[in-house]
Amino acid sequence: MILAALLTSVVINLGLCFIFFTLYSVLRKQPGNITVYAPRLVSEGKRQEGDQFNLERLLPATTAGWVRKAWETSEEEFLSTAGLDAFVFMRIFVFSLKIFTFGGIVGLLILLPINCTGSQLHDDSDFQNKSLDSFSISNVNNGSNRLWIHFCAAYVFTGVVCILLYDEYEHISSKRIACFYSSKPEPHHFTILVRGIPVPHGSTCNDIVEHFFQEYHPSTYHSHSVVRRSSKLQILVTDAERLYKRLTQLKDKDNAPQRHRRDGCLGLFGHKVDILDHYEKTLGDIADNVRMEQSSLAGKEIPAAFVSFKSRFGAAIALNIQEGVNPTDWSTEQAPEPHDVYWPFFSVTFIRRWISKLVAYVACNILTILFLIPVALVQGLIHLDQLETMFPSLRCILRMAVVSQVITGYFPILILQMFLSAVPPIMIMLSSLQGYISWSQIQKSACSKVLWFTIWNIFFTNVLSGSALYRLTIFLEPKEFPRVLAEAVPAQASFFIAYVVTFGWTNIASELFQLIPLLYNYINIIFVGDSDDDDFEAPSIQYHSEIPRILFFGLLGVIYFILAPLILPFLLVYFCLGYIIYRNQLLNVYMAKYQTGGEFWPTVHNYTIFSLVLMHIIVIGIFGLKKLPIASALTLPLPILTLLFNEYCQKRFFPIFKAYPAECLIKKDRQDQNEPNMPEFYDKLVKAYNDPALMPIKYSGGSHKPLLPCADV
Amino acid sequence: MILAALLTSVVINLGLCFIFFTLYSVLRKQPGNITVYAPRLVSEGKRQEGDQFNLERLLPATTAGWVRKAWETSEEEFLSTAGLDAFVFMRIFVFSLKIFTFGGIVGLLILLPINCTGSQLHDDSDFQNKSLDSFSISNVNNGSNRLWIHFCAAYVFTGVVCILLYDEYEHISSKRIACFYSSKPEPHHFTILVRGIPVPHGSTCNDIVEHFFQEYHPSTYHSHSVVRRSSKLQILVTDAERLYKRLTQLKDKDNAPQRHRRDGCLGLFGHKVDILDHYEKTLGDIADNVRMEQSSLAGKEIPAAFVSFKSRFGAAIALNIQEGVNPTDWSTEQAPEPHDVYWPFFSVTFIRRWISKLVAYVACNILTILFLIPVALVQGLIHLDQLETMFPSLRCILRMAVVSQVITGYFPILILQMFLSAVPPIMIMLSSLQGYISWSQIQKSACSKVLWFTIWNIFFTNVLSGSALYRLTIFLEPKEFPRVLAEAVPAQASFFIAYVVTFGWTNIASELFQLIPLLYNYINIIFVGDSDDDDFEAPSIQYHSEIPRILFFGLLGVIYFILAPLILPFLLVYFCLGYIIYRNQLLNVYMAKYQTGGEFWPTVHNYTIFSLVLMHIIVIGIFGLKKLPIASALTLPLPILTLLFNEYCQKRFFPIFKAYPAECLIKKDRQDQNEPNMPEFYDKLVKAYNDPALMPIKYSGGSHKPLLPCADV
Repeated sequence: MILAALLTSVVINLGLCFIFFTLYSVLRKQPGNITVYAPRLVSEGKRQEGDQFNLERLLPATTAGWVRKAWETSEEEFLSTAGLDAFVFMRIFVFSLKIFTFGGIVGLLILLPINCTGSQLHDDSDFQNKSLDSFSISNVNNGSNRLWIHFCAAYVFTGVVCILLYDEYEHISSKRIACFYSSKPEPHHFTILVRGIPVPHGSTCNDIVEHFFQEYHPSTYHSHSVVRRSSKLQILVTDAERLYKRLTQLKDKDNAPQRHRRDGCLGLFGHKVDILDHYEKTLGDIADNVRMEQSSLAGKEIPAAFVSFKSRFGAAIALNIQEGVNPTDWSTEQAPEPHDVYWPFFSVTFIRRWISKLVAYVACNILTILFLIPVALVQGLIHLDQLETMFPSLRCILRMAVVSQVITGYFPILILQMFLSAVPPIMIMLSSLQGYISWSQIQKSACSKVLWFTIWNIFFTNVLSGSALYRLTIFLEPKEFPRVLAEAVPAQASFFIAYVVTFGWTNIASELFQLIPLLYNYINIIFVGDSDDDDFEAPSIQYHSEIPRILFFGLLGVIYFILAPLILPFLLVYFCLGYIIYRNQLLNVYMAKYQTGGEFWPTVHNYTIFSLVLMHIIVIGIFGLKKLPIASALTLPLPILTLLFNEYCQKRFFPIFKAYPAECLIKKDRQDQNEPNMPEFYDKLVKAYNDPALMPIKYSGGSHKPLLPCADV
Repeated sequence: MILAALLTSVVINLGLCFIFFTLYSVLRKQPGNITVYAPRLVSEGKRQEGDQFNLERLLPATTAGWVRKAWETSEEEFLSTAGLDAFVFMRIFVFSLKIFTFGGIVGLLILLPINCTGSQLHDDSDFQNKSLDSFSISNVNNGSNRLWIHFCAAYVFTGVVCILLYDEYEHISSKRIACFYSSKPEPHHFTILVRGIPVPHGSTCNDIVEHFFQEYHPSTYHSHSVVRRSSKLQILVTDAERLYKRLTQLKDKDNAPQRHRRDGCLGLFGHKVDILDHYEKTLGDIADNVRMEQSSLAGKEIPAAFVSFKSRFGAAIALNIQEGVNPTDWSTEQAPEPHDVYWPFFSVTFIRRWISKLVAYVACNILTILFLIPVALVQGLIHLDQLETMFPSLRCILRMAVVSQVITGYFPILILQMFLSAVPPIMIMLSSLQGYISWSQIQKSACSKVLWFTIWNIFFTNVLSGSALYRLTIFLEPKEFPRVLAEAVPAQASFFIAYVVTFGWTNIASELFQLIPLLYNYINIIFVGDSDDDDFEAPSIQYHSEIPRILFFGLLGVIYFILAPLILPFLLVYFCLGYIIYRNQLLNVYMAKYQTGGEFWPTVHNYTIFSLVLMHIIVIGIFGLKKLPIASALTLPLPILTLLFNEYCQKRFFPIFKAYPAECLIKKDRQDQNEPNMPEFYDKLVKAYNDPALMPIKYSGGSHKPLLPCADV
């Protein structure tokens, strides 16, 4: 890729970003779009839908308003509004900005001039047609002593990143503890999930659990609720709820023409019927089914129960000490928040859960392998010369400057992007098969799946198949690894710079613009009509797709800091935009459904360590290729030191993210003793972990009488 | 190796065993040898030293007596006499006998005939000169369908081993729990070791510990003792004790000529002095030093303490829940038995401990690498033809039948053995550098070090350097691994059969004979005179050298079951002998100083799984070499299934060996409440974990007044 192509790409994407920004500034002030651009505020009741109270709504000039607001919100204010997970998410940007500001200064002021003044590549073209490779380490002459500056840079950069990583981990763990101290009593702090309860023939799980905990934890045991096999019921209840919602909408509108349709295929043939009657009849049938199912559920106990304790410390004791003589019986884990529980999987037997896990694992690998095909196609597109030989008839078109620049700079990444957007939902599906008991755990697991998927399918596949696909076999020859990477990675620098500009920038801008919710909103207004639903729910941010995306840019920055520092300014722009935009979105748009308590940070930390070690391996290879074997050997301690540092961090901070220490639990328990509304909380605790499918169904629309009879209250 | 050479070896070793047995039968009845052949009974006071009450002591005929006794002792009796660790040790023999009886029947009746009737090796020599390779799988014709029988045998054998492994793990864990239930209250059940106590400037560790546990574990905290830096004092006390012992001996004998010696170099020059006076003076000096040191120790606190609790469950709570907000502070681990504590390492700072760990790790690796040299020499000796080309002048001697048979059958293993016997003490030394807090942990760690050392240096080095040393590089090419092993391992079958016969049999017989203690005993009687020391101590069995040795024979059996089943009868003889002899030794000779509670079994289990997987890898390679790729592919699920089985066993049984479950702890605590002597036990508990170097020194010889004044009682 030449400099001119990169500039074209930059200009196109700056243009796109500008368009998105202007549109956002205008559209967000339209009253109809408030559910798109400030759904959080709507659902919190701070702003009303269709609010007419805005004067300057066609002036795009006050764009800076939202930027200033996002910028000025203090850390404490942000934390209390958006929660710890959002805070951790924003720390990724802060951390990246810190390391790449340092990296950028060193890279652009010291490394880039050294690279440019080299003459290894003999690139004597004028500035505009200069290949981007001339700005990379490939251009430094073999055996040149200037490479020692790169060597020092690798050490200094690693040191700075490690110090910042340590600070960040410390900062976030202290925030986690502080959040715990300031939290109200919450059911999941007092509750554990017990699985593998050994139920002898003739007795019920309910009795066994009660007897066991009254016997062995008499002073702390509070209550329990046994899980029941309710998957069939869940489907029925969901059906009923959907139908009831539709029914209410129809009743509200009361427009006769829409109330009749034919009862045949697709509503096109057959007799005309009143839909209202039809729906009510169906709902009645379902209600009967639900009633029957609920009454028969008493016998469908699963040997698992949520056991609540009188104190947090009591729950921690039962959680941490192996209960029964057989370690597979009475296995305990921390309960998630009640609305975070993933109920469907409780219905499944142990052996089916085990098989599901295996299937999920295999499927995840197959997905990774099959994904190579579209990526390889995309790779074909950027290598224009290959395309020319494949389609000689297209040669004249392909040689047009504009076409070639669009193809090399923009087109391939768009295709890749389309395929990639399907990956996070698939990974969520696979993770939900793995037997996790809560949505947040599923999301966390999907997050790391997507992370490794991204590394493998964007980084390694581009790097290795860009040069030659058969090099994939190098993973079976660990000795060759640094050399092969050192040859392939710098060659792809220009691809990844273009990737940052095209994919990164546009993606961040479109995050602000919220194209799909906006379209959905318009369609809704036009076809369905403006429904003032009372139970309007703000969307929650998809950490499992956002975090891997952002971290991947971090990986690129870390790896190319030594090889091609030209990537850093583009990354800095990305992280600056991201910081402001995501702060705005988290304050106005997204609302977390459940909190993990900052548990995403260890993933971020590990990934950064991985990036560093990968960088070291490549640098070792580079020094080998550049005929500086001493530098290569002297870099060897760097990954070892980094891994030792990581080992220490794991010991120092990771346990804080797994569980709260005794000190905190006991202090918090003592605070509660003075709390006046604890008896009320304990009363609620008894029913907190009942399966929602087993609860008498309530509808939030107060004006309508519930159609379903309360089966057993 | 030909059959005749093997038979020579068998005859020599049977002869040696017979000699050892006869000598044992005669010598064990001599009253002077009772400290060699029944030290356990002596130290338990069941038999007196120099007991004259034996009539038939020169008749070797009643050999069967001890065999019958060892055989007839019931499992319960053995367990209560020798302890759980000895029981686990004997289960290795029982388990090995079970699997190799099954393996032997299948191997000799089914696999061996198939191997013999093959014609791949074209070995048409008569029976006596037949190469042992003709009995191995190498002799089966390539692509022969008979190999499917080997394939089935691999599956069936793995299945049987896994079932027996499961049974054994279950049996031993139930014994472990039963032992816990039947145990008296012991200090280490009630105590944990706390390290990394954060001591702010100006306060003492003592106060901090007391305050912390009274604050957070008020109902269960009992007492604590802070560890002090006492390494200097320990040396002084050891010196004083040694000197005192020598002094007592001298006083007892009261023979004037020995009481004087010259005070110069080596006691040969200088003035004549009375040793008694000299010793007493020195002892006085040391006593002063000890007094001074002990009084100055108050300030030398180490931020570590043994904290005792009122109940086992209380200790388990403090052990399992992270105490402080910073996970590196207040780190807890289970306390060992008081006399099992390894005191020297407490004196060392955290950073020195960390460096020691690293040094131990590196040293362990270097030892493994350097060890290749003697093994390679030994390898040279068995390849007679190589020796002939190296020393052409020796050709005539080397071609003599007896010489060649001795060289190939017996000599090399003896040299190897000499080098190997130095390894376990070195590994103990390295493990003691690794920061373990008890002797039993050091022994356990040394045991696994010796295990891997044995696999690497006896198995892999023999197999790979026996064919070619350069093949060591295959560990960097995982793809080639099965093929290389499949070529090399069957070729070494004859070496390992000889190894079992020579090394295994003789070793077991010499274990019975106890050559070195016997010689030491005679030297002692002749030069020092018969000392009736009251504090006579029975030796303890060196699990870290015995277990790896026995398990290695198990590994050979598992690996060669398919390849060369001829090894199995020799192994069965080994395990039969071992069972009887070690049972006898554990009942009469060895006495455990400390118990791990059967914690060696998980090591045995993991090692057996490793052996199975290694066998599978070799079998996969073999089928590849034998042109039966389908069988090769169909064997692939076998290691995966085995590893899954291991995964399950780890979940099902391993936690029982790490800690006792809440159920047991609470039941045991409730039992104690009715125990009348608990107050007495709690009183003892306070002082149980005081550093012995800080205790006022007592001497067991009641007739002598202690020379050292009790510094501070």
